Amino acid sequence: MYQEQYSRYVSMVEEALESLLPQTADACPAKGHAIPAYLCETMRYSLLAGGKRVRPVLLLAACDMLGGDMEQAKTAAGALEMIHTYSLIHDDLPGMDDDDYRRGRLTNHKVYGVGHAILAGDGLLNYAYECLLKNALDHPQNMEGLVRAASVIAGRAGVGGMVAGQSLDLLSEHTEPDADRLSYIHTHKTADLLTAPLLAAGHIAGATKAEFEALEAFGMSLGIAFQIDDDLLDVEGDAAQLGKQTGMDAQRGKMTWPSLVGVERSREKSAQLWTQAEEALGVFGEKAWFLRAFAEGLRGRKK
Amino acid sequence: MYQEQYSRYVSMVEEALESLLPQTADACPAKGHAIPAYLCETMRYSLLAGGKRVRPVLLLAACDMLGGDMEQAKTAAGALEMIHTYSLIHDDLPGMDDDDYRRGRLTNHKVYGVGHAILAGDGLLNYAYECLLKNALDHPQNMEGLVRAASVIAGRAGVGGMVAGQSLDLLSEHTEPDADRLSYIHTHKTADLLTAPLLAAGHIAGATKAEFEALEAFGMSLGIAFQIDDDLLDVEGDAAQLGKQTGMDAQRGKMTWPSLVGVERSREKSAQLWTQAEEALGVFGEKAWFLRAFAEGLRGRKK
Repeated sequence: MYQEQYSRYVSMVEEALESLLPQTADACPAKGHAIPAYLCETMRYSLLAGGKRVRPVLLLAACDMLGGDMEQAKTAAGALEMIHTYSLIHDDLPGMDDDDYRRGRLTNHKVYGVGHAILAGDGLLNYAYECLLKNALDHPQNMEGLVRAASVIAGRAGVGGMVAGQSLDLLSEHTEPDADRLSYIHTHKTADLLTAPLLAAGHIAGATKAEFEALEAFGMSLGIAFQIDDDLLDVEGDAAQLGKQTGMDAQRGKMTWPSLVGVERSREKSAQLWTQAEEALGVFGEKAWFLRAFAEGLRGRKK
Repeated sequence: MYQEQYSRYVSMVEEALESLLPQTADACPAKGHAIPAYLCETMRYSLLAGGKRVRPVLLLAACDMLGGDMEQAKTAAGALEMIHTYSLIHDDLPGMDDDDYRRGRLTNHKVYGVGHAILAGDGLLNYAYECLLKNALDHPQNMEGLVRAASVIAGRAGVGGMVAGQSLDLLSEHTEPDADRLSYIHTHKTADLLTAPLLAAGHIAGATKAEFEALEAFGMSLGIAFQIDDDLLDVEGDAAQLGKQTGMDAQRGKMTWPSLVGVERSREKSAQLWTQAEEALGVFGEKAWFLRAFAEGLRGRKK
């Protein structure tokens, strides 16, 4: 039952993306005129590269749980995945992480060049808002809810959210690990964009104050646990490859939980946060069965 | 009278920017929490580098002419200048134009590094929408008008607008000049973001259909003339420096009007467009005095 529901949500995400950014750009619903073919291909290369679609599935599942309109949620979910994808394209650029591969495929700039990778990222970020704004105009009966949903996404994605986390992350390379700074980086770089879909769903569906608090607590706990697990998977990957356990991502010099408190205490911290995430869902009772199972799945994930 | 009014509009833009992105980011109105200091400084370096503030002044002047709310217009004008500024920061990056200087100052990435220049651009683009969405929520009596204003800005800035123009521009380097392609590039790369403020003002002020058509015609003519003049100023600058008149921007290999039809016919084309721009304002009569004078000023500008 969980797997089927998960597949259903992923299909809704893929449908939304395909309808918002079709192969032949002429039909783009948010646009009066076409997207140039090469730019469209560049954006689609990264947007349709698969992945678990964690953020848009969180949005759809939360909206479904709260009884919100799923058509409105689908567009918002697609837009959120565009924002996540732009951040990956720009993160991979020279001057940022300078990566040649992501999930076993060449990164965007290795295929289309640095200039077009910058533009594809800018284009996806801007188009996300174009779609969110059109969504609000297309549903005047829920315009305020949809503007609030777009607004919470903007806040968590931007200069007080994900971009803030990326900035501190970049500034903290090759510096001494520091708990406050690391916590700031994880909260903003990762947890903010995992909390945004839950709060956006709340605005689309008209959640109560108590429900918003629960969604925020669930998203933040899940988001930070997700990042700690990512760091642990990197350490384990390195250990398997290099035959040693190192708390430092040597290649990057990035600040991580294992580098700060060691592998064992990082595992404890992660376990504690996953428990908090589950507890936060208590207010929704049985209705939260999918989010509960989805969190379990994220917890047990492999690289 | 014109100079005083122009100074008044520019002061409104500077005020809006300073209040939306203050030095100490703690007080940022659109944010619950602060922007990291280094990121804030990186964004302010380019955003507050002066310039003629052409786009936000167009928005304020058009809204003023149409009797719209100037507080709503100020925020939209500030957001639009953020979008223009992000595009300059990203345009200057290696992989794009790779410029070391802009208006006699070091470009953003030469001061703050490529990584932070990417983030500052992403941050400004995202923050622009954060401010536009907050503007809509802050003025529920005109929410639909403000969402439409944000939507038209997104459309003209994005993958069917400015980003589309940048993409074709990048793809057309060192290719044979072609009139259709050049027209596409100028329309989208330049004229779209000069038309956006006029249409946004129309939505804020609730313009009539005839007024929208006039604003679109004025913006498009002015925008393309503006770009042709820019290309001509480059040619004249090169000619002064090199002692010859060349129709090609040799260093860049960019496609321009002078490279396509020569300097004289480019001047004729520009003059014709400036006339069309003035004629488009006819429907507004005397009320368009400032826009008329502003267009005259842009026409006579030097590099």
